[in-house]
Amino acid sequence: MAERKGVPTMKDVAREAGVALGTVSKVVNGIPVGEEYRKRVEEAIEKLDYRVSSYARGLRSSRTFTVAVMVPNLVSPFFSGLVNAINRELTARKYRMIFYATDYDPQQEQELVRMAEQQKVDGIICLSYNPDLKVSDGVTLISIDRYFGPRIPCVASDNYGGGRLAAEKLIENGCRNLAFLRVGSRLTNEPNKRKDGFVSACEALEVPYTLKIIDDGTPFTAFVDFLHEHFHEGRLEFDGIFCVTDSLAYLIRKELGRMGVKVPEDVQIVGYDGVKYFGDLDYTCSTIVQPVEEIARTCVEMALSGENSSMPSLVCLPVTYASGGTTRA
Amino acid sequence: MAERKGVPTMKDVAREAGVALGTVSKVVNGIPVGEEYRKRVEEAIEKLDYRVSSYARGLRSSRTFTVAVMVPNLVSPFFSGLVNAINRELTARKYRMIFYATDYDPQQEQELVRMAEQQKVDGIICLSYNPDLKVSDGVTLISIDRYFGPRIPCVASDNYGGGRLAAEKLIENGCRNLAFLRVGSRLTNEPNKRKDGFVSACEALEVPYTLKIIDDGTPFTAFVDFLHEHFHEGRLEFDGIFCVTDSLAYLIRKELGRMGVKVPEDVQIVGYDGVKYFGDLDYTCSTIVQPVEEIARTCVEMALSGENSSMPSLVCLPVTYASGGTTRA
Repeated sequence: MAERKGVPTMKDVAREAGVALGTVSKVVNGIPVGEEYRKRVEEAIEKLDYRVSSYARGLRSSRTFTVAVMVPNLVSPFFSGLVNAINRELTARKYRMIFYATDYDPQQEQELVRMAEQQKVDGIICLSYNPDLKVSDGVTLISIDRYFGPRIPCVASDNYGGGRLAAEKLIENGCRNLAFLRVGSRLTNEPNKRKDGFVSACEALEVPYTLKIIDDGTPFTAFVDFLHEHFHEGRLEFDGIFCVTDSLAYLIRKELGRMGVKVPEDVQIVGYDGVKYFGDLDYTCSTIVQPVEEIARTCVEMALSGENSSMPSLVCLPVTYASGGTTRA
Repeated sequence: MAERKGVPTMKDVAREAGVALGTVSKVVNGIPVGEEYRKRVEEAIEKLDYRVSSYARGLRSSRTFTVAVMVPNLVSPFFSGLVNAINRELTARKYRMIFYATDYDPQQEQELVRMAEQQKVDGIICLSYNPDLKVSDGVTLISIDRYFGPRIPCVASDNYGGGRLAAEKLIENGCRNLAFLRVGSRLTNEPNKRKDGFVSACEALEVPYTLKIIDDGTPFTAFVDFLHEHFHEGRLEFDGIFCVTDSLAYLIRKELGRMGVKVPEDVQIVGYDGVKYFGDLDYTCSTIVQPVEEIARTCVEMALSGENSSMPSLVCLPVTYASGGTTRA
C-alpha cells in the first residue's frame, strides 16, 4: 500500500532546520554559510527527502537538463532499443528525456522540433525522415542516420563497412551468387550506403551480384515476384542474400519457406540491425549488429556538449557480424 | 540541407505586428483586444511561426502539460508498445511525455517518482515493481498492472478473463491435459490472476492441469527440468501449455523443439501479451492479446482528469485470443 505525503519544499527544509529560507537557498546553490548552518540544512534535506528541482537547477545554470528525443515510433525494435539506450545515457547524467514519436511524418517532425525549441531543451536527438528539417540557431540537434549537411552532426553505424562485411561473410560461408534486397526511402541517408559497401566487396572479390531496390510504400509482392523470377526448377539462382534490415530478412525467409527453399542449406541470409527476439533473446537472423549503445552515448555526449561549431559532421561507429541461424557460420 | 533561424519570441511578434508586448500577451492568453489588433497579432504569429511555449501555457493554467511515464525498459516489446501507445494519446492531447526507465529497481522507481513530483508533472503513469511506492498527496499516479490499494487507480488487461480464455481455447482445440507455466514476481500483481482464471476454467470444464510457477531470477532450467520430468517414451504428458507471457512461450517452444516434441501437432501452446515479430509482423505465438491501445487511452484519460478521489481503484480491459501457429486454431 502506497503512503502519501506532501512534496517537501525549500520552506519545509528551512522550518525543519530552524534557519532562514535564504540560508537553505545558499546551501542548495553551493554558496558558503557557517558550518553549523550547513550541517543543519543538510540534515533537514536528508530527513525530509527534499530534492532540488530541475527547474531550480535550470534557473542557476540556464540549462533545463532536458533533451528531446524523436524517432518514428517505439514499435520497431531497432527504434525502441535505441531510445532505451539514449534514455539510459541521459539518466546517468541526471538529464530527463522528453520523447516524441514522429510517425514518419515530415510535418509532424518539424512541428515537434519547433515545440522542443520553445521548451528550451538543451538538445534534440532526432532520427528524421524530413530532408528539409529546419532548426533554429543556437539549438543543438544531433541527427541519427540522416545527413543534413555540415552544420548538423550525424551519428550512424558504419553502414558502408556493414554492407562490405555482409558480402564478405556470405562469400566466406561459400556463397557464389549474391543478391541485395532493399526497401527504403529515396532520400539520401546513411543506411543507403549499405548497398555501396556490399557492391564494393562483391566487386573486389569478383562475386556476381543482383540488386533489387524498391521504395517505401511499394508492396512486398515486388520482392516475391523478384524471387520467383530467379527461381528455376526448384532452385533459386542466388545462394546468398543480404537484406537491408532484419525485419526484411524475416519476411524473405518466410517467403523462401513457402517456396520450399531451405535456409541456410540452399540460401544463406544476412540482415542488418542486430534485432533480438523479445529484445534480449536470440538474434532474429545472421546479421550486421548496429552498436546501439555507442550510437546512444555519442549522440548524448554531442547533444550535451553545446559546441555545435566544433563538432564533426558525420560519426560512423563500427558494426559487428553475428551468426543467427540463417548462415552456415 | 537544414535552414537555421532564431526561435521567434513574443517580442518578435509584437515588433512584426507593430503592437505593444502586452497586446500580444493578451491575444495569446485569450483576453479580448480590439479586432484589428487581434488580427495583426494573429497574422504576425502565423508569419513568424511563433509557438506559445508549454511553459507560458503552464503559467496561465497552473498545468505543465507534461506527464511522466515509467516502465522498466523499452527493450521488452510489450513495454515499448505500451509506451508508444501512451505517447500517441498524450501527443493527441498536446501533452508532452517525460520518459523514465526504471530497470526493475524499486529504489530507482521511488527516486524517479520524487523527481517527477518535483518537476510538477500533471500526472505519472507507472508500471512499477516497488510494492512500497510512496506518492505525494495531490499527485495523480496511475499504475499499470500493480494494485497499490484503493487510492491509486490501477489499469490492467483482464488478466483473470485472459487466463480463463487461454484454458478454454486450448480445450476447444482438443487438449485434455494442461500445464500452466509462470515465471514472475512474488508480489501481488494483476498478471498473477492469469493463473486463477486458468485454474477456474480447467476446473469448470473438468480438465486436469499442472502448475509450474518459478520466481523471477530462477534459472530457466527449472522449466527444462519440469518438462523432462513429464516426458516419457518420447511423449510429453501435456497436450496443451499456457505460458504466462509470449516471451516464455518462445523459450518453451524452442526447448520442446530440442526434445523432438512438435508444436502444435503434439503440444499446443498459448502465450499472453500479443507480441508481434518486429512490432507489426506475425504474432510470435497463439496468444491472449492485451488491449494496449485501450490501456494507454484509459491511463492517459485518468492521469489528466485530475480527480483522484472519484476514480475507480481497478479498471480491467477486455482481452482477445489470436491464433499464431502454436495451436490448431
